[in-house]
Amino acid sequence: MVDITHKISTLRKAVATATVKASAAATIRAVEERRVPKGDVFEFARAAGLLGIKKTSDVIPDCHPLPIEFASITYHTVGLDIQIRVEVHTIYKTGVEVEAMHGASVAALVMYDMLKPIDKGVVIEQVRLEEKTGGKSDLKANST
Amino acid sequence: MVDITHKISTLRKAVATATVKASAAATIRAVEERRVPKGDVFEFARAAGLLGIKKTSDVIPDCHPLPIEFASITYHTVGLDIQIRVEVHTIYKTGVEVEAMHGASVAALVMYDMLKPIDKGVVIEQVRLEEKTGGKSDLKANST
Amino acid sequence: MVDITHKISTLRKAVATATVKASAAATIRAVEERRVPKGDVFEFARAAGLLGIKKTSDVIPDCHPLPIEFASITYHTVGLDIQIRVEVHTIYKTGVEVEAMHGASVAALVMYDMLKPIDKGVVIEQVRLEEKTGGKSDLKANST
Amino acid sequence: MVDITHKISTLRKAVATATVKASAAATIRAVEERRVPKGDVFEFARAAGLLGIKKTSDVIPDCHPLPIEFASITYHTVGLDIQIRVEVHTIYKTGVEVEAMHGASVAALVMYDMLKPIDKGVVIEQVRLEEKTGGKSDLKANST
Amino acid sequence: MVDITHKISTLRKAVATATVKASAAATIRAVEERRVPKGDVFEFARAAGLLGIKKTSDVIPDCHPLPIEFASITYHTVGLDIQIRVEVHTIYKTGVEVEAMHGASVAALVMYDMLKPIDKGVVIEQVRLEEKTGGKSDLKANST
Amino acid sequence: MVDITHKISTLRKAVATATVKASAAATIRAVEERRVPKGDVFEFARAAGLLGIKKTSDVIPDCHPLPIEFASITYHTVGLDIQIRVEVHTIYKTGVEVEAMHGASVAALVMYDMLKPIDKGVVIEQVRLEEKTGGKSDLKANST
Repeated sequence: MVDITHKISTLRKAVATATVKASAAATIRAVEERRVPKGDVFEFARAAGLLGIKKTSDVIPDCHPLPIEFASITYHTVGLDIQIRVEVHTIYKTGVEVEAMHGASVAALVMYDMLKPIDKGVVIEQVRLEEKTGGKSDLKANST
Repeated sequence: MVDITHKISTLRKAVATATVKASAAATIRAVEERRVPKGDVFEFARAAGLLGIKKTSDVIPDCHPLPIEFASITYHTVGLDIQIRVEVHTIYKTGVEVEAMHGASVAALVMYDMLKPIDKGVVIEQVRLEEKTGGKSDLKANST
Repeated sequence: MVDITHKISTLRKAVATATVKASAAATIRAVEERRVPKGDVFEFARAAGLLGIKKTSDVIPDCHPLPIEFASITYHTVGLDIQIRVEVHTIYKTGVEVEAMHGASVAALVMYDMLKPIDKGVVIEQVRLEEKTGGKSDLKANST
Repeated sequence: MVDITHKISTLRKAVATATVKASAAATIRAVEERRVPKGDVFEFARAAGLLGIKKTSDVIPDCHPLPIEFASITYHTVGLDIQIRVEVHTIYKTGVEVEAMHGASVAALVMYDMLKPIDKGVVIEQVRLEEKTGGKSDLKANST
Repeated sequence: MVDITHKISTLRKAVATATVKASAAATIRAVEERRVPKGDVFEFARAAGLLGIKKTSDVIPDCHPLPIEFASITYHTVGLDIQIRVEVHTIYKTGVEVEAMHGASVAALVMYDMLKPIDKGVVIEQVRLEEKTGGKSDLKANST
Repeated sequence: MVDITHKISTLRKAVATATVKASAAATIRAVEERRVPKGDVFEFARAAGLLGIKKTSDVIPDCHPLPIEFASITYHTVGLDIQIRVEVHTIYKTGVEVEAMHGASVAALVMYDMLKPIDKGVVIEQVRLEEKTGGKSDLKANST
């Protein structure tokens, strides 16, 4: 694990996204209308995703444990896609990119698990870092 | 959580894949030659991925805890892509699809975390179920 | 930890309840109308409660790990009270009473945490076993 | 999870209590004389409760992880009641009320689990916050 | 993780020991008389050791999760040594040797942590498997 | 858990070692040549040991959670012995001795688990603190 004892704490933010692609419009409607038999997909994915963000250093060997001081998980549906957006902030010596990506992955997996009984064709598309600020190099992904 | 008390234990298998895409061939060479500064990417991702498979029901609210009786994580690199293949077997009343996908996600995130210092453009592509056998409906994904 | 190697697996069920008492009717309305600023109280408590049920043997030293084969968390509001009802089933050598009570406790704590910003007077009332079947002695609590 | 990046770290304390009610005086004597077959109830509940305090943010989706800098768990028996008192301190941007309540809940569940074989009538009474200091609003519960 | 899907469940037992060596007789007396300032060393080590046994497959990548159906942790002091003996039973397809050794390690670390303030010379001596029965090859360690 | 609210954060370091003793030279060669059937022993032990360091306060009741700001796990083989050296740094109010010892224990257990199929005589020798700096009293163990 990289030595960060000499680094200075600054406000650091990261945004990651994951996309869950359904194979039928009925799947998306069932999610939006909260009619999925296993439960409320958006809220279960949010609750589990928040827990996931906080467990990142328990899962990834080289991740430093750090104080998560803000986290949000929001959704945006377009056609057959549910885009999950996870934003995490900390004031610490290292960034929260992996935390944001872990939260997005967990939220996407919760959706996959809950949608599996009603749609066999669900796939998790790209999990990617969209933005980070506060470290040595800021990043802003191009929309693709 | 779905009631499975009445179901019968059978041998169930699942295969999931995740693809980690680098932005430069040098990244892939560093992984293969085990020269990544944070450590041995393939072995760290495998160790963490195996632990992840076993923690799936701690992370996904509706997943049943179940006896993981076989798991393997293997890699295949093509161009800028590292494809992670996770296979899981159980003899139980419900399948191991989400376990295989969780293991693939965790392995991919470990790679992302370890490669971040040497390649800012790493992205996790599709996490998807490739095969499942042993439940009500078998599945064999088409290559796409 | 008690020796259960010689015991026979049977279907075992347990129901536990916890009651969260608010100090104002506005709190209950905010929960029911899903207007609590921290999020959807019922769904977050359900997601976390399901995870809690499965983690019981990680938290309670003498609890045997066991296959949770069904779990549900439902709510019933009466006046200022939210009653949480947790039902758990297993087919195993020992019962799921503590699992049901742990799930009820976790769900109640999630409510407490989410309601704290809007109601300083929230209290967790009785966490209790209501029913168990399938072991040496069945139990059916009197309503009190 | 609420944004606390802009908040100032101060010394914050919280005290929570949980009450475990036995159905016979013999139960209380067995606890006090450390004759309960499953083991030493006070010490097991204390050990598990301390671990529980530290795991609060792993269990409650909206809880911030924070540095627990002091924790104690003490007991007081009156008649058929064992009152568990949990005190937690931190120097951080948010309080430790839920941590204290989670520790009290876990300690109470350990007692329930250990006493179940000798007393079928054990119930967990009120889990409640008794005191908090150091945040925007101090609180001192009335004795009831 | 080795494939055990084809194996047969049998009763399997394992006994492991760890030895904690103090540097002064006063340390051992403080433990036995339960006067160690941090708390009751024997009971804390037992509670944490039981939890550790159950978490083995969360910590060791290649360990199969399995149903712990009996566990005990006992102590024996000789001179400056506290010998911790951990016995674990399961009925499953693979043994519980690593579970017993993990429980012994965790119990020893709890002792080390609690004794550190009163004895700077505490060391954890050999953690070893003493006996296993029920698998392909039984083992009975010679006393050494 | 000891009250550290009044203490001052300083740079604190600890080094712990554990020794895994094989019963045949072929075992050591298999590890060094990465031919152990269960996988790459050094890398699996390192990955799991790093995770173990970070989980110490989840396992040891009286350990304070703290920010691990550097950790390394290195190996040294002499004859039949594999010596595991774990170094941990933090800037905090209390030291990281138990974290280093926990990491060394977990790494040793991973080796034991992976070597068991090829060498029945593996034992974990002494787990001990070698150095600590930054607290009230520095320590430098004599070589023994």
